[in-house]
Amino acid sequence: MLILGVDPGLTRCGLGLVETGGPGRARLVSVEVARSAPHDAPDSRLDAIGAEVERLLDASLPAALAIERVFAQHNVRSVMGTAQVSGVVMREAARRGIPVATYTPSEIKAAVTGNGRAPKTQVAQMVTRILSLDAPPTPADAADALAIAICHAWRGATQASSAPATAAQRRWAEAERASRRR
Amino acid sequence: MLILGVDPGLTRCGLGLVETGGPGRARLVSVEVARSAPHDAPDSRLDAIGAEVERLLDASLPAALAIERVFAQHNVRSVMGTAQVSGVVMREAARRGIPVATYTPSEIKAAVTGNGRAPKTQVAQMVTRILSLDAPPTPADAADALAIAICHAWRGATQASSAPATAAQRRWAEAERASRRR
Repeated sequence: MLILGVDPGLTRCGLGLVETGGPGRARLVSVEVARSAPHDAPDSRLDAIGAEVERLLDASLPAALAIERVFAQHNVRSVMGTAQVSGVVMREAARRGIPVATYTPSEIKAAVTGNGRAPKTQVAQMVTRILSLDAPPTPADAADALAIAICHAWRGATQASSAPATAAQRRWAEAERASRRR
Repeated sequence: MLILGVDPGLTRCGLGLVETGGPGRARLVSVEVARSAPHDAPDSRLDAIGAEVERLLDASLPAALAIERVFAQHNVRSVMGTAQVSGVVMREAARRGIPVATYTPSEIKAAVTGNGRAPKTQVAQMVTRILSLDAPPTPADAADALAIAICHAWRGATQASSAPATAAQRRWAEAERASRRR
């Protein structure tokens, strides 16, 4: 199953495509960062990012899109731009009938490293290991996008249904619940 | 000049079209509220609102789109949905080459009522008077969308250039600066 992970941002928007074969198995397909110029008008910047996302969706036809959930942070101005980008991205997925899943930063970190408070470098290291890459993807937005795709690959099945269907899924869900309690 | 005012929202998105003939002159063309069902998935809701906005943009071809700037408020969850809608709306304007202007709530209130802290009922009353309507537009999102369009009609010219061109524009800009100091 092909999953597009999106780390939304107005200056840099990470776009990571991962092919998954179920829990524990994931392969890098492509990773890129859509950019817009900070001195451009906000609407033009949203259109630049949106056009890149549309191109990638149409070229790759992912089975699902996973995107980081945006929260209010210290930098309110930057978080609003991030939320606007996520709105554009989610809508383009919906237009194409591609299911959208959202994850919090700590859910993503926990899924990839086992620790919801892992530093960014550790997340990038685990992404590198999981996808058998030679070096951590750069910039950070690229690694984050891949982490989001991996998070969905490994969590999506258990999240989609409240009663996991197979014994393996049940074991996975139990292990995950246990890791969250830690 | 035809101006589309947008009061962004995920449950109700106000869309007010106003024809303007310069400061002090504005005529209602149409007003509507795009809606999405709260129980639907966020991406579907964004697509529902986005499709309505696209339809209206293509049918009316406004010369400008004015939209309320989104700030972090108490209800962080709702403000993120609002920011996402504003991203979708701004991008659809940019795709069509329609200039986008953003205004803060207090700028809108000040432009329409002369008071940046005016209550919503007073804004609706002034919109009713300015557009010579029989009754205040409902719901509130409709009145707010018209207020945003009127705000742009009356401020757009002075905002677009740092050195107002005509004596009337200079007087308007001075009066506005004075009202902001109050």
